[in-house]
Amino acid sequence: MTHEIAVIPGDGIGQEVTPAAVEVLEAIDAVDFDFVEGEAGDAVKGETGEALPNETRKLAADADATLFGAAGETAADVILPLRQVVGSFANVRPARSYPGLDAVQPDTDIVFIRENTEGVYKGIESEIAEGVTTCTRVITEDASEKIAEYGFSYAKQNGYDDVTIAHKANVMRTTDGLFLDTASAVGEDRDASYDTALMDALAMHLVMNPQDYGVVISPNLAGDMLSDLAAGLVGGLGLLPSANIGEENALFEPVHGSAPDIAGEGIANPSAMILSAAMLLDHLGYDEQGDAVRSAVERVLDSGPRTPDLGGDASTEDVTAAVIDEL
Amino acid sequence: MTHEIAVIPGDGIGQEVTPAAVEVLEAIDAVDFDFVEGEAGDAVKGETGEALPNETRKLAADADATLFGAAGETAADVILPLRQVVGSFANVRPARSYPGLDAVQPDTDIVFIRENTEGVYKGIESEIAEGVTTCTRVITEDASEKIAEYGFSYAKQNGYDDVTIAHKANVMRTTDGLFLDTASAVGEDRDASYDTALMDALAMHLVMNPQDYGVVISPNLAGDMLSDLAAGLVGGLGLLPSANIGEENALFEPVHGSAPDIAGEGIANPSAMILSAAMLLDHLGYDEQGDAVRSAVERVLDSGPRTPDLGGDASTEDVTAAVIDEL
Ligand SMILES: CC(C)[C@H](C(=O)O)[C@@H](O)C(=O)O
Ligand SMILES: CC(C)[C@H](C(=O)O)[C@@H](O)C(=O)O
Repeated sequence: MTHEIAVIPGDGIGQEVTPAAVEVLEAIDAVDFDFVEGEAGDAVKGETGEALPNETRKLAADADATLFGAAGETAADVILPLRQVVGSFANVRPARSYPGLDAVQPDTDIVFIRENTEGVYKGIESEIAEGVTTCTRVITEDASEKIAEYGFSYAKQNGYDDVTIAHKANVMRTTDGLFLDTASAVGEDRDASYDTALMDALAMHLVMNPQDYGVVISPNLAGDMLSDLAAGLVGGLGLLPSANIGEENALFEPVHGSAPDIAGEGIANPSAMILSAAMLLDHLGYDEQGDAVRSAVERVLDSGPRTPDLGGDASTEDVTAAVIDEL
Repeated sequence: MTHEIAVIPGDGIGQEVTPAAVEVLEAIDAVDFDFVEGEAGDAVKGETGEALPNETRKLAADADATLFGAAGETAADVILPLRQVVGSFANVRPARSYPGLDAVQPDTDIVFIRENTEGVYKGIESEIAEGVTTCTRVITEDASEKIAEYGFSYAKQNGYDDVTIAHKANVMRTTDGLFLDTASAVGEDRDASYDTALMDALAMHLVMNPQDYGVVISPNLAGDMLSDLAAGLVGGLGLLPSANIGEENALFEPVHGSAPDIAGEGIANPSAMILSAAMLLDHLGYDEQGDAVRSAVERVLDSGPRTPDLGGDASTEDVTAAVIDEL
């Protein structure tokens, strides 16, 4: 069986790390892929006026899964609609420290399960009077239940004992109150053990004691911040993959952006993108191959060539070749 | 001249650390205080049905400044109205690491200037259909300008070269767009140097490179999370004071809560509360005395008795007495 994968490198280092991930997937003999490439981001907007052309949307909609690199200024115009196109309701962001790598907190292994459709991301904003603006944050019971179901299942399947529901229900009593109650009810129904945490206090505890956390289920924007915070704990965005999971489709992307400061130099760290490809393998049912890619990346991070962000002087290609060698 | 200070210990360790701060203020010969005590929090709610009785509101409104300890379950019902009572528009939260203390990032000295009146804290929420809720986040040009003016002035007066404006304007284009544009315009007008940062990326950078930051100006909820994150960097909430600044009045409180787990044992760390009293001294114009209290706390943190949260076995009283000795 051949899997059609939409490949959208985008801007900046997206152009460098996406081909690296494709190379790694191509090196996996057990799985057949058909890669179809689409354009998105600042560059194509410059040419066509559109950051996310219709053909690219269609590519992502029709493919079995999508690999997305990064976009520059137009990041939100690309990734938010793409998440919709693949019907993603869950954004899955593992933050893990690796042996041998400098990290602020070397004992971190947390997966953020971020609601991916609502909150302030609904885009309902207006200027209701001169100098007075509003953003309508939306929280529904359905979406809260869905993300909680996903999060608790993820924790169980992946052997995480600690589940934390993040919220700010002491201030957003109705909206985050609904999120908290709904997610807690899912935990009760499953007889799962879980904790709840105010997201401000959680930010502090994650910094001080990340080893106490496993899976963190949160509303959309809180997950955005908390997962980036965790990226800081483990050594930076160059290491964090993510999956945008829908019912029938999914998109995989590194948590990092297009990094214009180092783009074009061939020194971007491809790890986050390759780890995103590993999540794609899991998603298509190739768990064994996903694990193999993860351990290959781990071994290279431990004792292989390193890009400058990790203190080395290797190129993107060096690291990619080393990962493929380890496979 | 005698200054009338409203003292609201509240719940839990608020009852222990607030008297400690009062003792320290009483030990300052150069300044005369008249302390008037008010009730707020879970305990008084249990008795009277009201977490913030009218007499307490009035006390805070009429005093020259207020010292507030902490409240338990009712924290939001107490602190949000109290901030309104004193007309606070700026929440000032210094996060500093101290020599000799274990810290995740020992080289941190950042002051968060958090907008204190709007954002999701306006409390405009509703259930618009069954299972569908909204929270209307409000950002105005006036409040954004006011907090930016305050933040840039604070940076200048306190010798911070780095000013960062935090926002999420790539998603909240209208609301955080207004915040970002308005705050940036204040920086331009003053010919000040400043940076802007997406708050998710900022969360990561603060964890990895806190030494690159000085003053961070942010919307309300972002400041809530980012300042707690920074508390994690410097050794926990036991060390972070805060000031809620209004035009004519102000309220000072530790960033920590009522800590029910250790309340009543006499082992709460009074540092955050005493440092909040130092900010009160600054606010009333006694900068020299404020500095003296800060250095006394610093010396005690460096080589004096420590409470259990900092790995010692001293009591709240031991630490307080040591600070007074150092004055
Ligand atoms: C680019 C931006 C819209 C996006 C988000 O906020 O979701 C990014 O920060 C992310 O986390 O993938
Ligand atoms: C208790 C709560 C309402 C409050 C806030 O969110 O402002 C607290 O977290 C704080 O930061 O002082």
